Amino acid sequence: MNEIKIFSPATVANVSCGFDVLGFCLDTIGDEMVVRKTKDKGIRITKIEGYDLPFEAHKNVAGVSALALMEVAQPHCGFEIEIYKKIKPGSGIGSSSASAAGSVWAINQLLGSPFNKTQITNFAMKGEALASGCEHADNIAPAIFGGFTLVKSCTPLQVLAIPSPSKLYATIIHPEIEIKTAEARAILPKQIALKKAITQWANLGSLVHAMHTSDYELISDSLNDIIVEPFRSQLIPYFDVVKTESIKAGALGAGISGSGPSIFALSKGKAAAEAVAHAMKKVYSKTDINFDIHLSKINMEGIRVIKSN
Amino acid sequence: MNEIKIFSPATVANVSCGFDVLGFCLDTIGDEMVVRKTKDKGIRITKIEGYDLPFEAHKNVAGVSALALMEVAQPHCGFEIEIYKKIKPGSGIGSSSASAAGSVWAINQLLGSPFNKTQITNFAMKGEALASGCEHADNIAPAIFGGFTLVKSCTPLQVLAIPSPSKLYATIIHPEIEIKTAEARAILPKQIALKKAITQWANLGSLVHAMHTSDYELISDSLNDIIVEPFRSQLIPYFDVVKTESIKAGALGAGISGSGPSIFALSKGKAAAEAVAHAMKKVYSKTDINFDIHLSKINMEGIRVIKSN
Repeated sequence: MNEIKIFSPATVANVSCGFDVLGFCLDTIGDEMVVRKTKDKGIRITKIEGYDLPFEAHKNVAGVSALALMEVAQPHCGFEIEIYKKIKPGSGIGSSSASAAGSVWAINQLLGSPFNKTQITNFAMKGEALASGCEHADNIAPAIFGGFTLVKSCTPLQVLAIPSPSKLYATIIHPEIEIKTAEARAILPKQIALKKAITQWANLGSLVHAMHTSDYELISDSLNDIIVEPFRSQLIPYFDVVKTESIKAGALGAGISGSGPSIFALSKGKAAAEAVAHAMKKVYSKTDINFDIHLSKINMEGIRVIKSN
Repeated sequence: MNEIKIFSPATVANVSCGFDVLGFCLDTIGDEMVVRKTKDKGIRITKIEGYDLPFEAHKNVAGVSALALMEVAQPHCGFEIEIYKKIKPGSGIGSSSASAAGSVWAINQLLGSPFNKTQITNFAMKGEALASGCEHADNIAPAIFGGFTLVKSCTPLQVLAIPSPSKLYATIIHPEIEIKTAEARAILPKQIALKKAITQWANLGSLVHAMHTSDYELISDSLNDIIVEPFRSQLIPYFDVVKTESIKAGALGAGISGSGPSIFALSKGKAAAEAVAHAMKKVYSKTDINFDIHLSKINMEGIRVIKSN
């Protein structure tokens, strides 16, 4: 195999009570990337379509993660990367992670898969660090593992694949406002009440149990974030209305995707997810904020091959 | 059925990262209780063996929980209760919960089981409140449901039965020192670092996943309490040594049972649990502190009938 074209999906991190640890993978939105072997060693980014991003490998998240892999793999060839960016940077659905994960996943394939998913995640985290200032796997892990993932720890990296019931659909609305990562971080309290923390971990324990038992009602009951959402939702206009209307329309729960501004909802079945999409649209249609909306089943596979030769 | 004799088991609450929500049920230590129908309405405690506890129903946890049930059930008979107390009050393995849960469980049987487990737990919580000053289900839920339980919320009461792998054994050592509940509570911080809370809920999510997948290694990796144990362990002499030696001897993990002073360890298989018991004994044998030690498989059934007629 000398060339591979892949789909590198968008992802939702910080899933309600699973703040900083739980994420899931989307199926209908993602970047496309073409990676091909070259005789010249090193990583070259030869094409970027969709958004304006740096071509220098060490300044581009896809390049940085690829370089991290190359340092370990020391292959006899180099790679050139084309990025067809569909996920808008800063939208809160893992745009930089899709690039960081996609390049190393593809290179691993072209090298005959010497690395496992956890190792690839580790390389991709180096790229993510360029974008976010710190190494985390919240979005990278679901992109690479697919489905729902719980990042138990980052050092050493431990990613758990959490099963999810088959009728789970996500609806995502991306209101076109900018949230600075620094601001989203600064707004978080450093200290929280022990009592609230207990409620949060009861909910996460319960959510993991609900996923294992395909208990949609319990998923709904558990999808609460009483720690972070009350702060960060202030940065997203109409968040509370979108959430309330989504749940009224049948969503099991809703929350902030990543650090926003995107809002996700989870629903049982496609029809419910469509009703939620309709309800979300209705809220922002009455405002002057532009938005995109995505509907997706949970992507159990993660990054996938579109074409190879 | 006019009379029933039951075994009401000891339990471990505050299982490491599952502080305040996760508990499990023991099999080899528990109270025995005899409950029989009487023509006279009301609840009478007619015998208490083992420890010195009040006979007045409204001052005895078994009596208070029974009275709570009676108020709802309004049966045409009354009940007398004999308590053969084997679990030492204040030892941290659910002594009062065994009494509170046992009486209502038995009465429910004698009435033809009109109430489900959650309802019985709710009645028993009234008795527990007499002992601990607040209604909680940490020990009552595992006594009534058996196995591992996650109390997702108290109002309304939601108890989840978490599966556990079949080779899980508990070793419990009870050093005979007194810890005042008030002191155990006062030592807890009201506020905790968000960062630590995230680690704790990652561990609990991971532990629930490990239970579902029978992954002993992950159980071991997840059995950490970085929030409460560092404070409460100060109240238990030699806690750190007992924990370290237990793990050296093969335990998957160890922690404080309830609010202490008992210390629990979980192991894979009976032989490992025995080795852990040996290691625990060795620590306290070198001190002037008396101790009891218990070894038990996880009791999947909870309270059970010994005899009925």
